[in-house]
This record gives sequence, structure tokens and C-alpha cells, in this order.
Amino acid sequence: MGMYYGNLIIIGGNEDKEGKCEILREVIKKSRKKEGPLIILTAATDYPERVGKEYTRVFKKLGCGDIKVIDIEDRKNAFDAVYRMEIERSSCIFFTGGDQLKITSLIGGTFLFDSLKKAFKEGTLIVGTSAGASCLCSTMIVSGKAEDSPRKCTIKMAPGLDIIKGVLIDQHFAQRGRYGRLFNAVAQNPQIIGIGIDENTALVIEGSSVFRVIGSGAVTIVDGYTIKYTNVSELSSDETLAITDMKLHVLPRGYKYDIKQRKPILKNVSKEEKNETYR
Amino acid sequence: MGMYYGNLIIIGGNEDKEGKCEILREVIKKSRKKEGPLIILTAATDYPERVGKEYTRVFKKLGCGDIKVIDIEDRKNAFDAVYRMEIERSSCIFFTGGDQLKITSLIGGTFLFDSLKKAFKEGTLIVGTSAGASCLCSTMIVSGKAEDSPRKCTIKMAPGLDIIKGVLIDQHFAQRGRYGRLFNAVAQNPQIIGIGIDENTALVIEGSSVFRVIGSGAVTIVDGYTIKYTNVSELSSDETLAITDMKLHVLPRGYKYDIKQRKPILKNVSKEEKNETYR
Repeated sequence: MGMYYGNLIIIGGNEDKEGKCEILREVIKKSRKKEGPLIILTAATDYPERVGKEYTRVFKKLGCGDIKVIDIEDRKNAFDAVYRMEIERSSCIFFTGGDQLKITSLIGGTFLFDSLKKAFKEGTLIVGTSAGASCLCSTMIVSGKAEDSPRKCTIKMAPGLDIIKGVLIDQHFAQRGRYGRLFNAVAQNPQIIGIGIDENTALVIEGSSVFRVIGSGAVTIVDGYTIKYTNVSELSSDETLAITDMKLHVLPRGYKYDIKQRKPILKNVSKEEKNETYR
Repeated sequence: MGMYYGNLIIIGGNEDKEGKCEILREVIKKSRKKEGPLIILTAATDYPERVGKEYTRVFKKLGCGDIKVIDIEDRKNAFDAVYRMEIERSSCIFFTGGDQLKITSLIGGTFLFDSLKKAFKEGTLIVGTSAGASCLCSTMIVSGKAEDSPRKCTIKMAPGLDIIKGVLIDQHFAQRGRYGRLFNAVAQNPQIIGIGIDENTALVIEGSSVFRVIGSGAVTIVDGYTIKYTNVSELSSDETLAITDMKLHVLPRGYKYDIKQRKPILKNVSKEEKNETYR
């Protein structure tokens, strides 16, 4: 049986909310595939009211009429039947930034999460930005020293929401110098494709294993299949990793990558698509 | 005719001066191959007196008796016959950090530089840290926005001292998130091997194309030979680069890399060498 990819937009954080809003416009556009409200899920943040209001304002400005904010304060909330219905009927579920462990610890294993998976299977667009992006993987990076050489045991991972499989996503990527920690994570299991998404940059998945890059930065893809040597299993804690022959791609707006084939797709990049802006 | 590699220690900046001083001890050790003073060249810095005194103190503490500081304030200085003699008779020339353009604009094309090349050919160890490391390449990175996606035209390069050929060195590498700008530089001419050196980390070259890593961080090697596609020649200024199939190695202490063969060397990494510390 093939893998289910569904409709996803995964954002590296700090997406433009005042200018052309390329990414958030794409969210609205792609959520039109299904009826129902766009739900802003503020579980990740410590300031749910402020963040909820802010996204509501921006999405309204961009022409989205049907918006709902759901804040999950404790796990009990996430078993609430009202939320279940709302989630299942939504056109889009948008995970804000904050702390990815807040998301998974609050909604993992709850009715709300069951509904979210059901909605996803039925075509609801799932969007995550920053922490909301990281949490969508099977295994997520929780924390790890950035701007350092890759070291063993300095990176903390946890089980994610398992919405997108086979990849490990890091966000605010170039801006926070998170290359080393993604190399580290990929070296631990080269089966997983490491995807580093820059700020105001996103990948768009529409029912297949191919994603397309949008936004102003790049998506860095770390493919460990070619690794010939790593000392990751030999080291004691905090020693610097050795990794050889890792493969890297850096893809900006308009370029595509096939997760299943582990290959960038370069044909069919139209001039217009590369310069896509919304006026 | 083969390339001349000579004796070099290239440091990523911020090397330990108070603890075990692994790198600076290696400088003293390797400079013992030839008679003569260890010369500290402070041309790069705006604080030559302070920096000269500091390195003199540290090298004395580590057992080096014969130390001389040479500051070049203007190009006239660099034609001074006294300096020529001192440089040619030195066991080691140590370029401090500061601004790489100060080094090249002050000593490039001078008698002092001729003497430096002569000394290097005769076995004098050349050492550079931070800006002093960057300036040793044929082409050097002068500046470039770090912590950003690789963009065209945001990286400035200039002709370096041409002491080490075929490579492009960046320093403070993981600490300042300089991956993107090194990818950018390598994509512009994949013939060149990109070498990113972390702080308190160095590579040691002894008369061959093989370098060995010492210090607490890692050396990241960006090999563009495998690049299948890049848009570097097509873009207008400030657009994000696309690069596919770039090869990367991350090598910590004790690992080696052959610049000529473009290959990491993994055999012969002894347990002691990896944990080499100087007591």
C-alpha cells in the first residue's frame, strides 16, 4: 500500500504577515479544496489569545471569511466532543508556533488527534509553522544546540504527530544556523530525509510525495543514503560527530523534491512559478 | 609538477588560550621543524599592540622562547628590508584575526610577501586564525550574510594570499551559521573545495595534500564535484540559489582529508589521536 501524503503546507516560521503574504495566501488557496472553517490551533503557544487574534486578523485581511481559533489548555479539552466535530468539518487546521512538546503532550493520543487524522485523510489541509511544522513528523527535533558542530547527545528528539512520514523537519533553519543539528539527526538514521526550512519559506504537498517550495528562502534537504561513514554509534556523549559523503540540496521557490524517490525535480520549473508573487 | 603544500595550520578562530591550548601547542610543536623566531603578524587587527602582547604571553606560557611581533601599519612598512630578513629566518609566521582585506591590501605584492612565500617554500610554518585563516586561500571570502539562505551576489570575494590552493576557507563556521555562504561560493566554481572550520578547531598540513583535524569542533567540507544542477549563473541579484547533489563531510579531531584526491581518510584514525590532548 502506498503512503498517504494528503494536503500539507509546512512553514519554517516567521512567515510574512504584512507584505505580499505569499505563504498565507497559499494556505487560503489550498484550503478551498474542502468546505468548512479554517481552524487556528494555538496549542503550542503560551499566548494563545494574542496569537489567535493575530492570525485571525491576517487571514481575514487576505479574504478568508470562516475562521475559528481552538486553544487546547489541557488534555481534557482535547477529548471535548465539540472540538472533534469542528476539526472533522474543517477545511484547514493551522498549527501556530511555540513549543512542539506542548502540542504533542496536549493532543497526542486524544479524541481531537483522532479527528485531526480523520480530517486529514478526508482532504483537510494541515498547516504548521515553526514548532507547528516540527511536530508534524513521526519523530521531531525538540531541542538541540544550534550554531555548534554536530555533537552526540546534544540533540533531543521525541515522537511527533506522524502526519508526514520519512522526513524530519527543522525550521528557522538558515536564520538560526541549525545545519549541524539536522546533520546529527540524519546521521542517527539515514533512512530519514532531513528537511531544513528557512523563515518565510514553506513546502506545499498536494496528495503526492512531491513537495514544492514557496516563499523567500530555501529548503535544505539532507539525504543520508550516501553516507559512507559515521561514528555516531561509537562516541561518548558530547563528542563531535564525523559524517562523510552526505548529500545536500538547497531548493528555493518553484523547485520541487520527491520524498519517495529522494530526488529534486528540476524540469517544469516555469519562469512564472519561480517568480510567483501575489498581487 | 605537483602542488606545493608546505607546513600550515589553519584555525577557525577563537582558539583556546587558557585551557589545554591544544591548537597553539601544535603550532609550537610544528614550528620546531625549522630554526628561528615565531613571528606574530598583527596586520589584520585594529588592536595590534594588545593582540601581539596577548599571543606573546600565551606562546611564552606554552614554552616558546623566541617570539617576535611584526605589525604592518602601511604598505611602506612591508617593503622594509629588516622585516624581510626576519620573515625569511622565521620558524613560524602567525596571522592573527581581524580583517582579511587589511592583510591582503597591506602586504599583497610587497617585499614582505615575497619573503613570506620564500620562507614557506623553505619550511616555515604558516598559521592563520579567523581572518588570518581566510586570507591564505587563492580566493577568499571577505564578507557575506551569514544565517541566511544562500543568495546570489550577497557574498563578496577577493584575491587572497594564494598560500593554499584549490580550497576556499571560512571560519567561525558552525558558530556563525556560515553554511549558506560557503555553499554559495562553492556553487560558483565547484572546482574549489569549500572548507568551513569551527572555532577552536584547526587543520594541520605537513608537506602533503592531506590535512588532519585538531581541536574541539569540526571541519565541514563542501565538495561541489557532484553538483548536478545550480542556477547560480541565471539568477538576478539577491535571488535564492538552487543547488542539488552537493557532497558534504563533517570531520572532527583525528580525521583526515586529502584535498588532491577530494576524499576523507578514515583508516589509521587511532583512538589516541582522536582523544589527543596535551598535558
